[in-house]
Amino acid sequence: MKIYQANVIYTRQSNRFEIVPRGFVAVEDGKVEGVYNELPEHLKSCPIEDLGNRLLIPAMNDMHVHAPQYRNQGIAMDLELLPWLQNYTFPEELKYADTAYAERMYRRFVRDLWRFGTMRVVAFASVHLDSTRLLMRLLDRAGMAGRVGKVNMNRNCPEGLQETVVDAKAACASLVDEFDRDDARVRPIVTPRFIPSCTPELLEACGEMARRYNLPVQSHLSENHGEIELVKQLEPESRFYGDAYDRYGLFGTTPTVMAHCVWTDGEELELLKKRGVMVAHCPTSNFNVSSGLAPVRRFLDAGIAVGLGSDVSAGHDFSIFRMMVYAIQVSKMHYCQDKSCAFLTLPEIFWIATKSAGSFFGKVGSFEQGYDFDALVIDDSELNFDNYSLPQRLERFIHIGDDRQIVARYCQGRLVPDPGL
Amino acid sequence: MKIYQANVIYTRQSNRFEIVPRGFVAVEDGKVEGVYNELPEHLKSCPIEDLGNRLLIPAMNDMHVHAPQYRNQGIAMDLELLPWLQNYTFPEELKYADTAYAERMYRRFVRDLWRFGTMRVVAFASVHLDSTRLLMRLLDRAGMAGRVGKVNMNRNCPEGLQETVVDAKAACASLVDEFDRDDARVRPIVTPRFIPSCTPELLEACGEMARRYNLPVQSHLSENHGEIELVKQLEPESRFYGDAYDRYGLFGTTPTVMAHCVWTDGEELELLKKRGVMVAHCPTSNFNVSSGLAPVRRFLDAGIAVGLGSDVSAGHDFSIFRMMVYAIQVSKMHYCQDKSCAFLTLPEIFWIATKSAGSFFGKVGSFEQGYDFDALVIDDSELNFDNYSLPQRLERFIHIGDDRQIVARYCQGRLVPDPGL
Repeated sequence: MKIYQANVIYTRQSNRFEIVPRGFVAVEDGKVEGVYNELPEHLKSCPIEDLGNRLLIPAMNDMHVHAPQYRNQGIAMDLELLPWLQNYTFPEELKYADTAYAERMYRRFVRDLWRFGTMRVVAFASVHLDSTRLLMRLLDRAGMAGRVGKVNMNRNCPEGLQETVVDAKAACASLVDEFDRDDARVRPIVTPRFIPSCTPELLEACGEMARRYNLPVQSHLSENHGEIELVKQLEPESRFYGDAYDRYGLFGTTPTVMAHCVWTDGEELELLKKRGVMVAHCPTSNFNVSSGLAPVRRFLDAGIAVGLGSDVSAGHDFSIFRMMVYAIQVSKMHYCQDKSCAFLTLPEIFWIATKSAGSFFGKVGSFEQGYDFDALVIDDSELNFDNYSLPQRLERFIHIGDDRQIVARYCQGRLVPDPGL
Repeated sequence: MKIYQANVIYTRQSNRFEIVPRGFVAVEDGKVEGVYNELPEHLKSCPIEDLGNRLLIPAMNDMHVHAPQYRNQGIAMDLELLPWLQNYTFPEELKYADTAYAERMYRRFVRDLWRFGTMRVVAFASVHLDSTRLLMRLLDRAGMAGRVGKVNMNRNCPEGLQETVVDAKAACASLVDEFDRDDARVRPIVTPRFIPSCTPELLEACGEMARRYNLPVQSHLSENHGEIELVKQLEPESRFYGDAYDRYGLFGTTPTVMAHCVWTDGEELELLKKRGVMVAHCPTSNFNVSSGLAPVRRFLDAGIAVGLGSDVSAGHDFSIFRMMVYAIQVSKMHYCQDKSCAFLTLPEIFWIATKSAGSFFGKVGSFEQGYDFDALVIDDSELNFDNYSLPQRLERFIHIGDDRQIVARYCQGRLVPDPGL
């Protein structure tokens, strides 16, 4: 048993913070045993790590990020989705055939996740098996957790990024064999890039892999009008974009997360709900590639699970804290247009980024009993120059803090040191 | 004569960067004498400061910021403009009757401007003369420049923030007397808070002060629907919000900057153009207090001058670089709705933040001959791990850099050291 004393802030439900000033979090075997105002009798003999006046909060989950777009972070912002893929993204991903290049970039990618307090990811790698394996090992070695997908794609992209269905299946089997243990921190996820990148045969195969190995699924959904039109042409029998995934068993047959859903509405929204598919909301990406404002309030009202994604490199920022700010801002633009559509509050977006997103991994993202102890220690003393309240301190850190205030990171109960470059 | 050698990037016109790799900027008496690819004969004997592989760019101008809202930065984001003023802003500004409190906060305010590379401001102080004077002295002592307004207000706010017209005039005369010299770095600006805060008598007096002392004017315009409705009620003879300022000689009679203009259209837009009024675009603020998406492309198309403002504390971020990113994103949401409305490019927004904004102060914001040498030295070596091009290096610094990369700051040719707390 290990006990941490600090100003503890987390969520149990969407609409409010649980705040325990100078509280105690007891951790056993990597899981939270309890959060206490005062130390109960049975814990009085345990060692206590006193974190002083710092904040102790759940660690961040990035539910959508493209590791092999790392080099393009912060550049190439002048095109919409489809030409952006062709001109900037695919040429960069081609380089990941070279594992030496992949290693150099993936080390930086892992370190930047770490810097910004993201301990779990649902990540896209590239189509390449060896560099995907490398990324999974680097994340695991760093002590971080999540799901990493070797991308499946075989059309509408450069030849060097196209695989055969046979190779796709073999690669999946190999990754399952190496990584898919119940106690593994980093595990595979079936990752059809998106409908336009996959032939019906490959989509069939993806559905089959998900079922056979009981693997979760990630992909992109209804991000951009041009993309939605293209999907209509490619899958004319589908009633809507999400239905195309559904027809291949890739829409909630196993746990599924779909990035963006900017234009999801009507039947597609109903199906998201019915199938229990999670939305990875990526607000900076949706701005940067001119996609639009995703209707998160409508997802929440419908009971659809939502998490946040950096979507590097269409998103330019790794910080899930800054994603929270952006997500609130996006919701305020919906509120501007329709005052009955309440904007997201700070507890809500914090809950989305931690407990709601974390549910994709199991009991992750809260300090309730039995949850994995994924946590960040925030030293906000430079920001707290005037006796702000604890919720205000968290609000200020989220809005104006950065990696400099994150002074310790835990994943599954273990301290996660700087993985270096 | 002083010469700086570095990778020089600036703008002369809105649609492209001037880039001189390892170029030379010659500075005499605080002004740029020239930018050179190779050192000309007449400069060969001058001392050179070699900045190596760093970037040398114009310093930032913040065209709209509220100094006495410093403590509220990053908090209180749950209300729209008018209730936000009543509940959060006015109670904080009341504290600035106490110059000791003002000094403690204003020192931090000045330092944060400095940290993020903002060398010139058009700032609102509070209604209080003594603390306004203090802010002006602190900025001047720091070596930074700009216009600071003692706010004029006498209605729709707490009694402690209301002044008499007589006091307003006396305070203005006193500030002009102390600060309004041609060679002063920090000078006054007439600052009616906005129409709802000022009686017709006070607005008359503001117009008179601007004319009498030939002072520029700053205020707020068409930020929010509730505010616009209120102005209609308060100034029923005005045809539109901007017309209300115009009737009091506060709309371009002297150089004028109006913050926000989110809902400016039609006649108001025409009048902005006709009177040469500058728009201070404050994208984060417009998100945070649910105002909307300002139509910057339409302003540019109409030939209206635009600058960027942090609008702390409705805006949560001092970085004008991050304002650039936000401004592009806002323009992309307009583009989403109307593809004929091109989004802002990186050279355009850089030009807006530097040369366009800087025109409010004179020859400021470029490295063209005769411009004040306001400059930042950017050491982006941590971000430049893969031989990015110079425009990409600037783009990455703007998107993912922060104050850590700004290693030197110049204002009017002088190095500006850390002003401390």
